[in-house]
Amino acid sequence: MASAFEMATAVARRPDSDDSRSVYDGAVAEGWDIGDVANGGYVMALAARAMADAAGRPPLSITAHYVSPGRGGPCVVEVEPVRVGRRMATMSARLAQGDREVIRVLGTFGEPPEPGAAVLATVAPPADLPSFDESSVMARFSPTATPSGLPHRLKMRIRPGDEGFAFEQPTGRAEVAGWFAFADQDDNDSIDAIGLLLAADAFFPPVFNAGITPGWVPTLELTVHVRATPVPGPIAARFHSDVIAGGLLSEDGELWDSAGTLVAQSRQLALMPR
Amino acid sequence: MASAFEMATAVARRPDSDDSRSVYDGAVAEGWDIGDVANGGYVMALAARAMADAAGRPPLSITAHYVSPGRGGPCVVEVEPVRVGRRMATMSARLAQGDREVIRVLGTFGEPPEPGAAVLATVAPPADLPSFDESSVMARFSPTATPSGLPHRLKMRIRPGDEGFAFEQPTGRAEVAGWFAFADQDDNDSIDAIGLLLAADAFFPPVFNAGITPGWVPTLELTVHVRATPVPGPIAARFHSDVIAGGLLSEDGELWDSAGTLVAQSRQLALMPR
Repeated sequence: MASAFEMATAVARRPDSDDSRSVYDGAVAEGWDIGDVANGGYVMALAARAMADAAGRPPLSITAHYVSPGRGGPCVVEVEPVRVGRRMATMSARLAQGDREVIRVLGTFGEPPEPGAAVLATVAPPADLPSFDESSVMARFSPTATPSGLPHRLKMRIRPGDEGFAFEQPTGRAEVAGWFAFADQDDNDSIDAIGLLLAADAFFPPVFNAGITPGWVPTLELTVHVRATPVPGPIAARFHSDVIAGGLLSEDGELWDSAGTLVAQSRQLALMPR
Repeated sequence: MASAFEMATAVARRPDSDDSRSVYDGAVAEGWDIGDVANGGYVMALAARAMADAAGRPPLSITAHYVSPGRGGPCVVEVEPVRVGRRMATMSARLAQGDREVIRVLGTFGEPPEPGAAVLATVAPPADLPSFDESSVMARFSPTATPSGLPHRLKMRIRPGDEGFAFEQPTGRAEVAGWFAFADQDDNDSIDAIGLLLAADAFFPPVFNAGITPGWVPTLELTVHVRATPVPGPIAARFHSDVIAGGLLSEDGELWDSAGTLVAQSRQLALMPR
């Protein structure tokens, strides 16, 4: 049976698509939003679903620029192949709702070329992140006046203390760590490369722990590198804003599968909370 | 007088360009190469020059996917506006030589929205990076059998010890720090946002210090966030590959102006040296 996420990112290729341009019909599903705006990782995943289909391969490095808010309702993803190689394919795409473009996306698709190669360097999960079961249930906190649907679609766990900002006790450090899983995920389900794109943008912004008044944090650009295929189980993650200046913030993420393998890295540039 | 870099990235907008598509003529200049292939930061800068002209603003976040090698000779940059807003403009571009596309680029252009805002978090230059004058002159080392032109265009300085790999004494840590300046740069010259794109890819790959046999490191994707406008002087930088696995490596960079302000962050995904 398809998961709720698979259904919410399903796309259908129009039969009149050709090799130079594939057009997919889909929908920005209701309930994957933060305060009425579709989550940025979710709309990236929706576009990536179409791009991966056209590429015949999963995303390896993908970048989205956010140009207008995604809202519940039909959308179209137009995919243009930039270069299709033996091992990798580069694809450009635009996701639009009516005349309004929501995101422009550029990505290279393919499997890591040597999945069994020696790991010469990696980043380990935070030593102080408890197991999924021992972490705190993430509050269904909405940074805006409007309730957010996304938290209800997910099973999120947080390193104890990281939600202090919600009780006027920010940690003082722009960081959050925790666990990501889908609400309908079973123990033997894995999160695939498309699911990792959502995981890369599903936690609350770590800048909230820097003592900033929480608010809407508009993402300008999000890049995700998928580095390995997760084993079954939830995804551990750490997000941190190391550069908060000039009215902009970076947000870097590292994501690990339940065996502790680094499966993705993300970085976004966003505007300060407003 | 225009600098060598300005001349090597000069583009001319065709008079028949219109608002929906601007076409620029330029050339991949000789001598900005690593072993006969134009440097990835240089070709990104060339595309960005055209995109910034069309946007009327400098790059803020820019991503290039590398689909074929840039070679000395004419090129065309086709720029398509994705969204032009009041403060920011998102642009897509392709740089091609004849029928062959070299890079596809996606970027958002604009100044940081609050340049004078308080710095709530930042990353400091490495404490053990000596001043420009006290650092080592970077060897004009070429990782390939063919000589590289790029090092002759630049004044590069390296943290002493970081070039150990060239003498079979790698530091064992995939990191390099140093200074970047153009060869024709005077003390009162500044490096602008376009120059930072080159600086983000001008050092030797830090993976060489992980004990890997140096070789050609093909970049799949490079993203640069420009975070501030540099004051006059050279650029300090640190590059590090924290995840080397699956036949791929990440390379993260932080760049500072001579006053110690973080002016850019970069990240690329590349194939292992071959």
